[in-house]
Amino acid sequence: MPYSIGRVFMFRVPEGVELLRYLNNYAEENGIKMGVVNVIGFLKNVKLGYYDISSGKYIVNELNGYYELASGMGNISLKDGKPFTHLHVVLGDRSARSYAGHLIEGTVQVAEVYIQEIIGEPLLERKHTTGNLWLWPIQ
Amino acid sequence: MPYSIGRVFMFRVPEGVELLRYLNNYAEENGIKMGVVNVIGFLKNVKLGYYDISSGKYIVNELNGYYELASGMGNISLKDGKPFTHLHVVLGDRSARSYAGHLIEGTVQVAEVYIQEIIGEPLLERKHTTGNLWLWPIQ
Amino acid sequence: MPYSIGRVFMFRVPEGVELLRYLNNYAEENGIKMGVVNVIGFLKNVKLGYYDISSGKYIVNELNGYYELASGMGNISLKDGKPFTHLHVVLGDRSARSYAGHLIEGTVQVAEVYIQEIIGEPLLERKHTTGNLWLWPIQ
Repeated sequence: MPYSIGRVFMFRVPEGVELLRYLNNYAEENGIKMGVVNVIGFLKNVKLGYYDISSGKYIVNELNGYYELASGMGNISLKDGKPFTHLHVVLGDRSARSYAGHLIEGTVQVAEVYIQEIIGEPLLERKHTTGNLWLWPIQ
Repeated sequence: MPYSIGRVFMFRVPEGVELLRYLNNYAEENGIKMGVVNVIGFLKNVKLGYYDISSGKYIVNELNGYYELASGMGNISLKDGKPFTHLHVVLGDRSARSYAGHLIEGTVQVAEVYIQEIIGEPLLERKHTTGNLWLWPIQ
Repeated sequence: MPYSIGRVFMFRVPEGVELLRYLNNYAEENGIKMGVVNVIGFLKNVKLGYYDISSGKYIVNELNGYYELASGMGNISLKDGKPFTHLHVVLGDRSARSYAGHLIEGTVQVAEVYIQEIIGEPLLERKHTTGNLWLWPIQ
């Protein structure tokens, strides 16, 4: 069953805030329950997760310093009844070397965000699954 | 001549299936002839293509094991009369090192897909061109 | 204040042109003042920027030869009254090694572009800020 597109938002995130917390708050304040998210910019002190399937835990890679945020791709859906942003990112360093993974946290120097609200039923909701992940149901 | 947006789809792909085959079947079953595709997730045993312009063939880089799918960006259009998904991906390994290229195949562990149908004429259709590629006409 | 979606464009860029100049011209000819952009393809001789925060200048990494354009993510907004494309890219080489940064220039071998026009007020406009950047105002 297809969804449809609701409101769209395009804005810059203030310097110094943590990106995911900002996006989650933004979604909650604007009543966005489902959406798609694109971000480009420049981040500081980023933690990237890699899901280790044997332990069911995220390995955390800490990248200190500043990185071009070449791609932030993800979505918003409900988790524990609140809008939750799942964002995967690709970063570039000063030599254009690249790092990629699941964003755990990162401080914004500059972030240009595009959010497209998705409306319709059923609302996608993350549930705790085996392997210690929070996933949408298979429809 | 601009197009417009049709239906939108957001869903999780079942574990264990090959991503491109799944997306092509999904498009065919839902009658999606043009669209844009975004995917994030976690893939297993991925083959990435690099187009070697001197031979007109894809070099295949095989990445065994599990990788964060940091970005899957692409489109759906007709090829031989059927919907065909062209997807480029960026992967991250357990050290956040990154790999990028044209997706040839990859097994889904988790994949969260967003498809936005594009409607209007002319339908984009891939044609076999010099260099052994399948490209849209220049309009 | 949310925006809404205007026209959408999906097309292939001719071989041999510089990607950003082409996108800027395309936006101007079509009267696109705000939008989001996605590009995948295959580029030649790419210059990637990394913003060096201590000097307020971009470090330029030159990548000669051909690269898969695994992701081109960005936006269109006004700069000096004209539509300006801000694009971040991820490239893959023949070994699937990956490079990422702010696109300064790149020659198109193949580029499949998706542009989604954004309409509404206020029009986002880049202003020269401290640190020698051109940024949107915080709203």
